[in-house]
Amino acid sequence: MKILEGNGINPGELLAKINSPDDLKKIPTHQLKQVCNELRQFIVDVVSVKGGHFGASLGVVELSVALHYIFNTPADELVWDVGHQAYGHKILTGRRDIFHTNRIYKGLSGFPKRSESIYDSFGVGHSSTSISAALGMAIASKYKNNSTKQHIAVIGDGAMTGGMAFEALNHAGSENANILVILNDNCMSIDPNVGALKDYLTDITTSHTYNKAKDKMWELLGKISKFGPNAQEIVSKVENAIKSSLLKQSNLFESLKFRYFGPVDGHDVDRLVKVLADLKDIPGPKLLHILTKKGKGYKFSEEGNETLWHAPGLFNKETGEIIKVTPQQPQPPKYQDVFGHTIVELAEKNEKIMGITPAMPSGCSLNMMMKAMPNRAFDVGIAEQHAVTFSAGLATQGIVPFCNIYSSFMQRAYDQVLHDVALQNLKVIFCLDRGGLAGADGPTHHGVFDFAYFRCVPNMIVSAPMNEEELRNLMYTAQLSEITSPFSIRYPRGNGVMVNWKTPFKKIEIGKGRKLKDGKDIAILTIGHPGNFAAEAIKQYAEAEISIAHYDMRFVKPIDEEMLHEVCSKFKTIITVEDHSIQGGFGSAVLEFMADNDYASRVIRLGVPDKWVEHGEQPELYEECGFSTKMIAKAIQQAHAIALQKAM
Amino acid sequence: MKILEGNGINPGELLAKINSPDDLKKIPTHQLKQVCNELRQFIVDVVSVKGGHFGASLGVVELSVALHYIFNTPADELVWDVGHQAYGHKILTGRRDIFHTNRIYKGLSGFPKRSESIYDSFGVGHSSTSISAALGMAIASKYKNNSTKQHIAVIGDGAMTGGMAFEALNHAGSENANILVILNDNCMSIDPNVGALKDYLTDITTSHTYNKAKDKMWELLGKISKFGPNAQEIVSKVENAIKSSLLKQSNLFESLKFRYFGPVDGHDVDRLVKVLADLKDIPGPKLLHILTKKGKGYKFSEEGNETLWHAPGLFNKETGEIIKVTPQQPQPPKYQDVFGHTIVELAEKNEKIMGITPAMPSGCSLNMMMKAMPNRAFDVGIAEQHAVTFSAGLATQGIVPFCNIYSSFMQRAYDQVLHDVALQNLKVIFCLDRGGLAGADGPTHHGVFDFAYFRCVPNMIVSAPMNEEELRNLMYTAQLSEITSPFSIRYPRGNGVMVNWKTPFKKIEIGKGRKLKDGKDIAILTIGHPGNFAAEAIKQYAEAEISIAHYDMRFVKPIDEEMLHEVCSKFKTIITVEDHSIQGGFGSAVLEFMADNDYASRVIRLGVPDKWVEHGEQPELYEECGFSTKMIAKAIQQAHAIALQKAM
Repeated sequence: MKILEGNGINPGELLAKINSPDDLKKIPTHQLKQVCNELRQFIVDVVSVKGGHFGASLGVVELSVALHYIFNTPADELVWDVGHQAYGHKILTGRRDIFHTNRIYKGLSGFPKRSESIYDSFGVGHSSTSISAALGMAIASKYKNNSTKQHIAVIGDGAMTGGMAFEALNHAGSENANILVILNDNCMSIDPNVGALKDYLTDITTSHTYNKAKDKMWELLGKISKFGPNAQEIVSKVENAIKSSLLKQSNLFESLKFRYFGPVDGHDVDRLVKVLADLKDIPGPKLLHILTKKGKGYKFSEEGNETLWHAPGLFNKETGEIIKVTPQQPQPPKYQDVFGHTIVELAEKNEKIMGITPAMPSGCSLNMMMKAMPNRAFDVGIAEQHAVTFSAGLATQGIVPFCNIYSSFMQRAYDQVLHDVALQNLKVIFCLDRGGLAGADGPTHHGVFDFAYFRCVPNMIVSAPMNEEELRNLMYTAQLSEITSPFSIRYPRGNGVMVNWKTPFKKIEIGKGRKLKDGKDIAILTIGHPGNFAAEAIKQYAEAEISIAHYDMRFVKPIDEEMLHEVCSKFKTIITVEDHSIQGGFGSAVLEFMADNDYASRVIRLGVPDKWVEHGEQPELYEECGFSTKMIAKAIQQAHAIALQKAM
Repeated sequence: MKILEGNGINPGELLAKINSPDDLKKIPTHQLKQVCNELRQFIVDVVSVKGGHFGASLGVVELSVALHYIFNTPADELVWDVGHQAYGHKILTGRRDIFHTNRIYKGLSGFPKRSESIYDSFGVGHSSTSISAALGMAIASKYKNNSTKQHIAVIGDGAMTGGMAFEALNHAGSENANILVILNDNCMSIDPNVGALKDYLTDITTSHTYNKAKDKMWELLGKISKFGPNAQEIVSKVENAIKSSLLKQSNLFESLKFRYFGPVDGHDVDRLVKVLADLKDIPGPKLLHILTKKGKGYKFSEEGNETLWHAPGLFNKETGEIIKVTPQQPQPPKYQDVFGHTIVELAEKNEKIMGITPAMPSGCSLNMMMKAMPNRAFDVGIAEQHAVTFSAGLATQGIVPFCNIYSSFMQRAYDQVLHDVALQNLKVIFCLDRGGLAGADGPTHHGVFDFAYFRCVPNMIVSAPMNEEELRNLMYTAQLSEITSPFSIRYPRGNGVMVNWKTPFKKIEIGKGRKLKDGKDIAILTIGHPGNFAAEAIKQYAEAEISIAHYDMRFVKPIDEEMLHEVCSKFKTIITVEDHSIQGGFGSAVLEFMADNDYASRVIRLGVPDKWVEHGEQPELYEECGFSTKMIAKAIQQAHAIALQKAM
């Protein structure tokens, strides 16, 4: 990977002078277009060589400029929903010269982050939080009798489908607080947006525009006026009746007591500046609907596939060619693709199987099934709660749903897993992609709590495969009719370890681990992908030096008690390894078994410590947390030294 | 408490013959009113002497009868949202003669439950799940090419404010599946409903009715027609323009591509039967808006306070007098009331304090603050996700929010606690009412996972008071400006132990437990209210017989390491007690400490075992789970016997 230093990229003439929104405000309005062009170019320049999210930030260049031009940030509070569209905001708020460190270990976060800048009023990463947060801020200002302070939530039409956005609108509409919601309507989440709301927004934007309807009515009513003064009077009555009876409810947002404005072209910076300046003086809850295009203003992203250009990786900015490092030899596949291929393979044989994703078809590779079997694979929108209970509903009818949700997003549907699936012991198969440390997306996307929050749930089977073959076999096993419980299969972001991964299916006995290697001195118990790091670490020691056994436990619940009896009776030193919080995780399950069975071996738990781990490449984070190959090897040595000491 | 046997109450003549919906279908339509009267009377008869939810079921008597009269249950799937309105449904579906066991240990559940009856198509208890579940069922039928099967979700206007209901509507509107949503609009949750949606529903119901608007328009347009054929033509054009441009979006639900019908009087059984029969033949997503009154048809509940009659306890059905057992001597207060009084007391001194509840003002007693300081206490609707992130928004502005959510409902906002509060280390104080086994409401309402799901969260302080004084002191401590982290305080449903509970505030050191009693043989470590059971159990043993130390740990996180060092160095036998799952709970935190510090005492963990605990009185459930006073005493004896054996 080619890494340029930040000084290789130079901002345009105006952008170079903007070190804060105050500098931006000094620029005359007629030059804002140039600022937008330079900002857009700067994003293209940096992202093309450093990677990161792309389309979303290009889509809100004009909005970012207009917001900081009109509003008094950071005193006015600006909350970006999800936040991968906030690059322009970051560059305009004093982070231009370090923007090339975006998403790099110890560098800028890819999302707004309170600890990074006073301009980042609320940290984000997950979807649909912005209206709630901005409303909280607005209510606080109201309580402090501050009626001039502005509170702005910028939310996409995808994020608007998330239930909590609706909860917040419902509350905000009944509070007379100073909140401006900007609905950034680009018809896209990461994948094309789905659901009825999308169609509704298209409707009010195109032929059925609210404004157009009003115009048309007037035009037609105007024609009636030639019938004389009486007609005029009647027309007026008609108009009033319609206005009071229908217009008031003619807009979904006005139904919820927001004043609705728009739609406005979100790439017309002059118009945006004007509209925002006007809105500033209107109190109460308001919604501005703007229309933008993801990837706007860069030829290749504007014309190309929007999902592809959401986060394209590195690319040649002149040709639009996405740079693919072609490896010398075949590489193991991504776990997500193993999932994608395998569910199709299984569904071809088992007609009961369906696939469900909340707005992550390309991220979890369910798009393969959506293409192959469109009537059996569902993208339900950014709606994790619904995704789980919808799956439960399917399960009551004998369907076998594979519900694929990123581990950190599953936190959104925890109650539904408990209340709608596990309590009723319905067979829903949860595939938790991005389990463990997610990498450059950082702490909002690390999925390091799922063992803890699933392991306490009665009826749940909690598993994690060490490699592709195991993932396939767990998926195969889960869908067999003899399995009647909810079943969770958790795997990480990124690649597995098997080039020849398309192995024949084998049934796995529930709650049974695998002994990968026998040993005498130390037992290493691993769960999931980090088992590979442990296996590497073990190789660093000759058998005569330290004799290490390795058990891939496969299941956190039910845990393999027979295997644990063997381990605990034989070994005085046990190391557990997991890509998960060590508070309440896999290692704690081992400790519980030991307490219940009166074992007293020494246990060293390796995993994610009790802190928020920042962003960085996965290997960097594994190292930091102490369960990379190197760190496991070190732990082995230390544990062995202590054991020898104790034996003396 | 007076307990009558079921045979003391006799159903009316028609109801006595209805052992299944098939029997109901045999009754001629003109007699349905009588069935409704008898059903209503039966509910009054039983609930007045046995207790349970009341107002909600009275409100849907006609709907329950009409649904089972028209639809082919259980082949047609009927999902009741929340489910405390399903008593009529239960009585009509073969459970009349055991209905008097409602909510009693080993008796009928207070909510629909799949394992109880084939007519209970989906278990409920928490709000807003019904549309998701029914849609899953509908999609399964569509996949199976079954176009006649019906899938019905009955949801209240309160539950409709829950985000996942909106997520489900958004998805359903874009699927051409056979789903009927019945919006049961009574303007109430348990407390009066809040938010913009409520006003909207009132609007379309009253002066701004969709239908009325259409009528009025026609009427006025009719007048224009006297101007001759040309005018008629123009009028037709106007009408079409309006219809195509406005009507299509004039209804929130039609915005989401549901066909909207209503509003209909939900207490007119004849009309309901007719409307439902018509709707049966209309394919695709439909919403029927019915208007009902909670407590309908029973004089005292109809005219009285709806919140009071939601679940009034026992009452004299003739006089409407709610039976209050007046105790001989003063009783300790409910924990919820200690919370309610204390937050007002604290807020009087600390102007930064605000209170937030998602639709549980009377359940958690925040209504005291809402009354005393209406601008500082918020009921945000059935919207746990929003409640938490709204609190986070407040916290960014220096407000100190006390966000009170039942433990089992906090599962709905888990991601928001992680992502919006803890990751940003915002000081939000979570008061988790109904922590532990909730009693008669059963497994949907038991809050037995919160230690597990909160303890893995970095930055979180996780605490539980043993009594009223401790609750007050934890609340006092949490709001002090020196505390800068999210802070969880968890306490059970029901009464505390202190008659004189209004003690002066004392600061508690974070992460410090209390040694309540010294001892030599066994240490008991408790967290929260069950500490009282342990204290009682300890009293059963003379010091010379078994010498037992008792530590009230107060904090699950940070755990008192100094105290644990003392305990683990001194005691070979440790018993932990918690009103929480023993998988990953408080006891596991103790085990982790021991593993990390190389202690090898024997630990017996008492708490909720790894199974779904059914409903019953709290003491019955404590006994069943093994941490009642009696069971703790037993565990002490067993542990001591084993210790003696080992020592020999």
